[in-house]
Amino acid sequence: MSGVALVLVAHGSRREASNAEVRALAAQLAARAGEGFRSVTAGFLELAEPSIPDAIAAAIAGGAGEVRVLPWFLSAGRHVVEDIPGQVAEARARHPQVPIHLLGHAGALPGMVELLLAAAGNRAGGRQAG
Amino acid sequence: MSGVALVLVAHGSRREASNAEVRALAAQLAARAGEGFRSVTAGFLELAEPSIPDAIAAAIAGGAGEVRVLPWFLSAGRHVVEDIPGQVAEARARHPQVPIHLLGHAGALPGMVELLLAAAGNRAGGRQAG
Repeated sequence: MSGVALVLVAHGSRREASNAEVRALAAQLAARAGEGFRSVTAGFLELAEPSIPDAIAAAIAGGAGEVRVLPWFLSAGRHVVEDIPGQVAEARARHPQVPIHLLGHAGALPGMVELLLAAAGNRAGGRQAG
Repeated sequence: MSGVALVLVAHGSRREASNAEVRALAAQLAARAGEGFRSVTAGFLELAEPSIPDAIAAAIAGGAGEVRVLPWFLSAGRHVVEDIPGQVAEARARHPQVPIHLLGHAGALPGMVELLLAAAGNRAGGRQAG
């Protein structure tokens, strides 16, 4: 079992189905990762629970020796550039003994262009549309 | 040169840098696809130009014999479930001679879970974090 916890961070929505969709994605990541992560959970910037600091604290309380935070956002707006780093900094101050890494936001991850092209059926992406 | 045009559809933002980010992604897709698509352009649901119907019309005016519409959205909210299909239906009515395919939204595309795991450095995703 890995000592690394992954926290998938989303904006949060008044529409509970959207929050459930994020939690379901975290569960899918956990299932696919197998023992690769100690835990994979969701955290929300606003409008839903748990908050980002609370999700990180829960992962550490669950025994994680390292936390990776992955922003489930498409663009590098204020939330990605200011708000999430601010909350991660707050979590680091609360848990100085645990490395907490903030990863790049989903929209700009390596491989995204290829994934989109594959979905669009382009040969450069490696798959054809049906 | 392919006869297929790809239209990347985003929400649109009052923050022009966000719209520019979407247009830059469309340009990246075009460059990576090479001659795989006749064109790759951006269209916006609101707050930015061109609209989705206008982006589709421009692709067809540019000679596309088929258009694929890819929603650059993370979750299946009202925009993905109702608004974008409605605008695509409007475009189909305006261009009955051209097949216009609406693809799945980015957040649920095949391979997304693996891409996220790879970014998070999980072995199941195929890459390690630095």
